[in-house]
Amino acid sequence: MDGPSPRGVEIERKFLVAELPAELADHPGQRIEQGYLAIAPDGVEVRVRRRAGQATLTVKSGPNQVRTEEELALDDRRFESLWALTDGRRVSKARHEIPLADGLTAELDVYDGAHDGLLTVEIEFPSLEASEAFAPPPWVGPEVTADARYANQSLALTGGPPRRDA
Amino acid sequence: MDGPSPRGVEIERKFLVAELPAELADHPGQRIEQGYLAIAPDGVEVRVRRRAGQATLTVKSGPNQVRTEEELALDDRRFESLWALTDGRRVSKARHEIPLADGLTAELDVYDGAHDGLLTVEIEFPSLEASEAFAPPPWVGPEVTADARYANQSLALTGGPPRRDA
Repeated sequence: MDGPSPRGVEIERKFLVAELPAELADHPGQRIEQGYLAIAPDGVEVRVRRRAGQATLTVKSGPNQVRTEEELALDDRRFESLWALTDGRRVSKARHEIPLADGLTAELDVYDGAHDGLLTVEIEFPSLEASEAFAPPPWVGPEVTADARYANQSLALTGGPPRRDA
Repeated sequence: MDGPSPRGVEIERKFLVAELPAELADHPGQRIEQGYLAIAPDGVEVRVRRRAGQATLTVKSGPNQVRTEEELALDDRRFESLWALTDGRRVSKARHEIPLADGLTAELDVYDGAHDGLLTVEIEFPSLEASEAFAPPPWVGPEVTADARYANQSLALTGGPPRRDA
């Protein structure tokens, strides 16, 4: 969802976290604040995000449109001004990047604010084969890749973590 | 609505056009294309616009929020990319700026595309007093300042001119 390639196709899987891995302490989290300005009925979304002091505004196409993603840099004043307009449509978290076998990286997100207690991990794969061959380490919990409730947009709009038993 | 001051309070009145004024020919229109990327339930709107080759993305707050308006410049590639996402939420028109008495300027908009046939004129005033004292020239028709159907956003989302008899 948050891969570095705005135009490429990303192969990612998302899981819950069964228990925080021991290595977490070695990989300090980077704070990510993300808020949605507006989402159109056809799925076009406009969000602002700040990570490690870098702020951006991103526009993404909806699911039935030609895939488009445009990212514009924001200075601090503009970010703060726009952030105020995302009240009630926000997610904030600390992201820990934890190296796995085979050159993979686990992006472990520890949510705070309205989603306090939620832990997810995302892994991006270089190929479909690598994705299918992936053997999760024991601290990785149930997969939620296809569970729309765990998508960023859904988390932001729902204003809380999904119910685990729902 | 489209004044140059992003932070000030604008005093504007909007009218229909009874007949095209004779001076129109002396003031060639400047093409304006405006499309909405997304509008949030609280009224936050994100639009892109191109006028005289200058493209911008603008975020505006909703009616019950602290007034915020941020404008970001777009290069041509980005404008085209984002414009494609505004399908069904567009307004395009030619704007003619016609000088009036007392240093005022009439912004006469000749709509095309889905709003072909619609003509509006907007006038910005330096003070409330000037606004109240305004005596429209004969070619200016009924006032629609308070008629939400003629707001840019409403025109764009409705996809056509309001019915005159509605």
